[in-house]
Amino acid sequence: MAPAAGGAVLALSGGVGGAKLALGLADALPDGQLHVVVNTGDDFRHLGLHISPDIDTLLYTLSGLSNEQQGWGVADETFRALEALGRLGAETWFLLGDRDLATHLRRTELLAAGRSLSEVTAELAARLGIGAHVYPMSDQPVRTTVICGDRRLPFQHYFVAERCEPAVDGFTFDGVEGAVPNPAVMSLLADDVPERVVICPSNPYVSIDPVLALPGFWQALRDCPAPVILVSPIVAGAALKGPAAKMMSELGVPASALGVARHYCERYPDLLDYFVIDASDGTLAPEIADLGVEVATTATVMKSREDKVRLAQFVLEIGHP
Amino acid sequence: MAPAAGGAVLALSGGVGGAKLALGLADALPDGQLHVVVNTGDDFRHLGLHISPDIDTLLYTLSGLSNEQQGWGVADETFRALEALGRLGAETWFLLGDRDLATHLRRTELLAAGRSLSEVTAELAARLGIGAHVYPMSDQPVRTTVICGDRRLPFQHYFVAERCEPAVDGFTFDGVEGAVPNPAVMSLLADDVPERVVICPSNPYVSIDPVLALPGFWQALRDCPAPVILVSPIVAGAALKGPAAKMMSELGVPASALGVARHYCERYPDLLDYFVIDASDGTLAPEIADLGVEVATTATVMKSREDKVRLAQFVLEIGHP
Repeated sequence: MAPAAGGAVLALSGGVGGAKLALGLADALPDGQLHVVVNTGDDFRHLGLHISPDIDTLLYTLSGLSNEQQGWGVADETFRALEALGRLGAETWFLLGDRDLATHLRRTELLAAGRSLSEVTAELAARLGIGAHVYPMSDQPVRTTVICGDRRLPFQHYFVAERCEPAVDGFTFDGVEGAVPNPAVMSLLADDVPERVVICPSNPYVSIDPVLALPGFWQALRDCPAPVILVSPIVAGAALKGPAAKMMSELGVPASALGVARHYCERYPDLLDYFVIDASDGTLAPEIADLGVEVATTATVMKSREDKVRLAQFVLEIGHP
Repeated sequence: MAPAAGGAVLALSGGVGGAKLALGLADALPDGQLHVVVNTGDDFRHLGLHISPDIDTLLYTLSGLSNEQQGWGVADETFRALEALGRLGAETWFLLGDRDLATHLRRTELLAAGRSLSEVTAELAARLGIGAHVYPMSDQPVRTTVICGDRRLPFQHYFVAERCEPAVDGFTFDGVEGAVPNPAVMSLLADDVPERVVICPSNPYVSIDPVLALPGFWQALRDCPAPVILVSPIVAGAALKGPAAKMMSELGVPASALGVARHYCERYPDLLDYFVIDASDGTLAPEIADLGVEVATTATVMKSREDKVRLAQFVLEIGHP
């Protein structure tokens, strides 16, 4: 429960919010000590390409290629292929930049050649000069579906094409029962390699739940000796990015750090050791602590690179004497 | 043998040289009267994409998108995806522009959805506003292989990756025995729709032979009442574009319009009615005529749009009183 700072860290991440803290952790840790397991429930095939939006966000963020203003995609991006695709009658609701397209083409080519998504992700990360280990949560397909009344929307359709507008009633992670958690990550846990586990400030329902829903995975995290530290993705009742707060309201859950804490504590008993909330949510600390987790309070909003590293260092020092 | 000008024309074409005359014919004919059947022996899969280089050249040329200086690809092109692909370890010897990539992506997507190459080509041509009918020579794969000593090079490897440098000993058109000539084109011929057949100034060995090698196809051209007119791709002993003259020398054939005429007359007896040569090759006319074809002489080098239309009009008027 009180590991030395600088040891290996296993981080769980979805897209943008999670990638920010992952970047801070990568900066704060020695090379090779950060292991990030990434949600692939958003993966989809589009225009014949295998697209892994959260993995791509991690790759672009950790390699310094990302468009930080926009929150997705590559900086200094162009959309010439997409414009031409539109002219040829292809769907253009998913904004594929020219540089971004290269990632999807290469991934699809390597998968078609029989490589696993783990192998392909490691290859792409190495080519982009990323020192951290980036793992898809599973090599088997798991597909998040958003239930909106009597409609069942594949995640990217809900997220991009419908701009998160439909009210949400629930989620399914199709294929998750038959999927295996990434064996390399399971092996790290079996060998007690991580000195701490960090659940990044990602959407609980569509970024972290798909990862924790993999058979045996959250139990493996619970049972490993490393402390599990979650950083709340909700600050002062709002999601910093994405639809988390809107989803919580629609599901009848308080859209607050307390609502997030209850979600995890009810669904994954004894998983969390520490719950990091923003200083602005300090009044929620006693109720969260009543759920049986230690609450740590700091500034969690990450705008600058310094913010990211500072939060990462805070997370790495939690529990140290 | 003396159709009215303005009737339907069936043109056979490879890439750049053929596309130039096809553009002239499209300009010279009423809308919808030009039918172009295109070599697909150069088609290949690359980075998971189905690429049809000659069809693309036709599409880009007929739609006004082509890069005329360069002779291939799209004007005002960028290569941002390709640069990123190179960084990710993909092969980059085949220069894929960002706009060009859209064509390959859309084709591959539609083929994967079960559409035939004919249907996909028609869809792309319509989207690009092309009034001519563009047909792949077959919906079945035929793959031109270049025999160079004990090496057998897929055409694009010979043409692009090896820049046509290896000496050529012969060619095979793998799959041609089992391939069916485009049924729409066969149906035009069965219905005597074309009033003339034009074999564009394309490489005899790797652009036109693959088309004529389709079972029953050259015989159908020979047996149709329309005159078959070939425009020599060799002018004054040189190919205007591409490796035709070099190949002829390596195969021990005179690299001249006469060598071209002999190739066609020996391989496809009684196919050709007219053989169009450049004015600079006028001295070859008697020997070509001795092969049993009528020789027509004009300026065949197409630099400007006017050159293309003028040659097209010449071809459309051959045999008229």
